Amino acid sequence: MKKVAEPTVARLSVYLRVLVELLDSGVTTISSDELARRSGTTAAQVRKDLSAFGTFGKRGLGYSVQELVDALRSILGLQRTWRVALVGAGKIGQALYGYQDFRRQGFHIEAVFDSDPAKIGQRWDGVVVQSERELEAGLAERAIDIVIVAVPASAAQEVVDRVVRAGVRGILNFAPVQLRVPPGVALKNVNMAVEMEGLSFALARGAAGRRGAPTGRTAEE
Amino acid sequence: MKKVAEPTVARLSVYLRVLVELLDSGVTTISSDELARRSGTTAAQVRKDLSAFGTFGKRGLGYSVQELVDALRSILGLQRTWRVALVGAGKIGQALYGYQDFRRQGFHIEAVFDSDPAKIGQRWDGVVVQSERELEAGLAERAIDIVIVAVPASAAQEVVDRVVRAGVRGILNFAPVQLRVPPGVALKNVNMAVEMEGLSFALARGAAGRRGAPTGRTAEE
Repeated sequence: MKKVAEPTVARLSVYLRVLVELLDSGVTTISSDELARRSGTTAAQVRKDLSAFGTFGKRGLGYSVQELVDALRSILGLQRTWRVALVGAGKIGQALYGYQDFRRQGFHIEAVFDSDPAKIGQRWDGVVVQSERELEAGLAERAIDIVIVAVPASAAQEVVDRVVRAGVRGILNFAPVQLRVPPGVALKNVNMAVEMEGLSFALARGAAGRRGAPTGRTAEE
Repeated sequence: MKKVAEPTVARLSVYLRVLVELLDSGVTTISSDELARRSGTTAAQVRKDLSAFGTFGKRGLGYSVQELVDALRSILGLQRTWRVALVGAGKIGQALYGYQDFRRQGFHIEAVFDSDPAKIGQRWDGVVVQSERELEAGLAERAIDIVIVAVPASAAQEVVDRVVRAGVRGILNFAPVQLRVPPGVALKNVNMAVEMEGLSFALARGAAGRRGAPTGRTAEE
């Protein structure tokens, strides 16, 4: 199967999001120029990204927004439901569980695991928080496709090793640590705290003038 | 000022998080080997990353966890409070506002802006949601250092342009779009949906055997 680079996939996600917004606003067709502008890229890049997956749009007429939404959803594997488990029922886990957009996009959290006796047995809507000791059995029982890791950094690699051994091939990691997975397992990382600290680092080292008057000038680093 | 690469800064954040966990568990010293193992990197990398900022640890004794925590907090600009504004009071904005760890790390959300008349005027703990029309005035009035952008993709670039013109030099973007900022402005991106769709893309294209029995084998791509 043809290899598609990660940045391309990320741009397809962005196009999809822009197009869904347009659809909600009643827009039915869009040019590659306009799609590019709204997605923060170039029309040439849009055409190149899409051409890898088929022929879309008509010369001079642009793309049908609905057709492109359907095609992108299919390309991104979003025309189906993905069965998701959440490991870690702390603050981030709770916020993710309540994040309605995941469900709307077809990612259904079917199981929640934690090691804290105070959390085990809690009922979150339809899902009961299970002991992490039941992880392997729970993943198999519910035929989980994707695991969201929201445990402390020090526990994350062990959780991931167990999840991978249990046959799960997709992991979304929120723990602030570089995780190792074998080939054939897809791993994505989301780390708000690290990004935020990257900002504070840049700002703390940024020279004077950072909080200068809004003159339109940009501070030099 | 010496340039420090972004991956280095991200690793410093990871070390800090690991060390704070250790401190909470009562651990007082740690070797570079152990810090590396818990951070998912090598001891040589740990020593190289830290050596850029001074001399830490004693040969054969390892690092003092407390000393390293203090040093990393200082390096990362976390020994002070950062004044943060949130633009976009939707689901992501609300989740971020409730995310206690930001406050604990010194990032205080001092203002919230939205364009939705139904949200404007809402009181979120101590902060009243303001109209986006008051953005520039509000940022100046509260001496905001960092803006979190949590608006729809189509609105994000305009918000960022206004924020940059108002003199803000740090932006954390949750909108699923590539944003442009001038030199001297630090921009970091967090995109859960894009990461999640990257997983579904990888899994949807992954060959059969993805949900195979937990044999320890890894599926080939």
